Amino acid sequence: MPLLMDADALNAFCATEFPQVGGDFTVESVSEDEVRIRMNIGPQHLRPGGTVSGPTMFSLADVTIYFAVLSQIGPKALTVTTNCSIDFMRKPQSGKDLVATGRLLKLGRALAVGDVLIRSEGSDAIVARASVTYSIPPKE
Amino acid sequence: MPLLMDADALNAFCATEFPQVGGDFTVESVSEDEVRIRMNIGPQHLRPGGTVSGPTMFSLADVTIYFAVLSQIGPKALTVTTNCSIDFMRKPQSGKDLVATGRLLKLGRALAVGDVLIRSEGSDAIVARASVTYSIPPKE
Amino acid sequence: MPLLMDADALNAFCATEFPQVGGDFTVESVSEDEVRIRMNIGPQHLRPGGTVSGPTMFSLADVTIYFAVLSQIGPKALTVTTNCSIDFMRKPQSGKDLVATGRLLKLGRALAVGDVLIRSEGSDAIVARASVTYSIPPKE
Amino acid sequence: MPLLMDADALNAFCATEFPQVGGDFTVESVSEDEVRIRMNIGPQHLRPGGTVSGPTMFSLADVTIYFAVLSQIGPKALTVTTNCSIDFMRKPQSGKDLVATGRLLKLGRALAVGDVLIRSEGSDAIVARASVTYSIPPKE
Repeated sequence: MPLLMDADALNAFCATEFPQVGGDFTVESVSEDEVRIRMNIGPQHLRPGGTVSGPTMFSLADVTIYFAVLSQIGPKALTVTTNCSIDFMRKPQSGKDLVATGRLLKLGRALAVGDVLIRSEGSDAIVARASVTYSIPPKE
Repeated sequence: MPLLMDADALNAFCATEFPQVGGDFTVESVSEDEVRIRMNIGPQHLRPGGTVSGPTMFSLADVTIYFAVLSQIGPKALTVTTNCSIDFMRKPQSGKDLVATGRLLKLGRALAVGDVLIRSEGSDAIVARASVTYSIPPKE
Repeated sequence: MPLLMDADALNAFCATEFPQVGGDFTVESVSEDEVRIRMNIGPQHLRPGGTVSGPTMFSLADVTIYFAVLSQIGPKALTVTTNCSIDFMRKPQSGKDLVATGRLLKLGRALAVGDVLIRSEGSDAIVARASVTYSIPPKE
Repeated sequence: MPLLMDADALNAFCATEFPQVGGDFTVESVSEDEVRIRMNIGPQHLRPGGTVSGPTMFSLADVTIYFAVLSQIGPKALTVTTNCSIDFMRKPQSGKDLVATGRLLKLGRALAVGDVLIRSEGSDAIVARASVTYSIPPKE
């Protein structure tokens, strides 16, 4: 199945639809098998001591699967998260961006399921792992 | 077991330790059985259309169990989230604060587990449900 | 909303539809707010040492929300589990049945979400906690 | 890090320690990066209609990460599951064994986290996905 949105299209969609947080995320690459998203870490994402906050990592996992879904079904803003299970495994490296790689495991008519690994840029160690389910609006 | 931190102590701890987000949360009540936290919703928590974002609800669930743990073990900032599973079930009402009620199901030496229900203020309908596991640092 | 199946109807449905495992479960009570299911523990549910196995507790959590859904929508065998997140918190007491209490948090057109607490019979301590999502087949 | 248990050692351990269910599982391969487990499906694993039951898939996911942990830390029977989040995505093919591939994402002193994909033998389609956390007993 050809992709309906590539990295440029996803970045443009994000900037338009989510002006408040759009600058936080950069789609680095997208293929049928994997999307790769960078989170541009700024002071608003940090906890005291300089570590990236849990909600920040949650938002990255959530966005990663959102983009994986949109790349295959096109820009449907009504697609909503119904479940996320996330494991936090290591402290992210301070002063580094986060990089997420996500893949879709199922893309059904009503539900899509994907999983995500999050690492600090330039490191192999996995900082967090998440699985995310999205509900897809019915076709009209 | 008597509580080691009451609502005032938790609110003061939050303001001191998490100055960036401390104003988002107000501990309304805390007992052995339940903590009740209000999230003071502002523009930074909203998605286009005025709905509260998923990461905002995640942060409320996470904080709720954090406060439930601290109320029983005292102010240990090194307590960290290891897992969260969250279900988003309904759209929050726009223009309303969120209210979370949380309870601890287990408080062990190494792990604490709690669950949380999130509602829009003044409504019975459940907006989200989460279970959260915290790792507790060993006693020195 | 009146219940479409009471405890007797659920027990009869279980015996007919799931002859292999139907005898494992007894619906003790069902109301709009809560279902209560006993799991009749036998040797086939135990691990060496006499503790109830994890898959056994999973099956109890799963069945509990299944019955909660059926009590409200009637006998739709095509209702299937899409997600379960389960926390194992304490060892069950050996030689005791398990008792699960479940409640529905959402009953939508396409998805139902509930949560479950599992205890050893006669004990207050929570052995396991689970949240379960079911997909409901569309009406014809 | 060299493996402390290979496929033969894991199969022998399983047969000895879990005589009731040991015959259900065959470790096909194990390396630092991945364990591969076959579940030998029999009538006791099926629901009416011939589909593999949810608790059966849960048990396969659980065992897969258990073996991944044991392969690296050796035969510690006290290692226990603390959390599992599982997504059921497709019906398994009837009359086929299940094959699980698992990997450890974290192996800490106290907790290990892994994830698992389950497929019907000979098929690429993912039937279920799970993440599993084990608690590791402290060294004496």
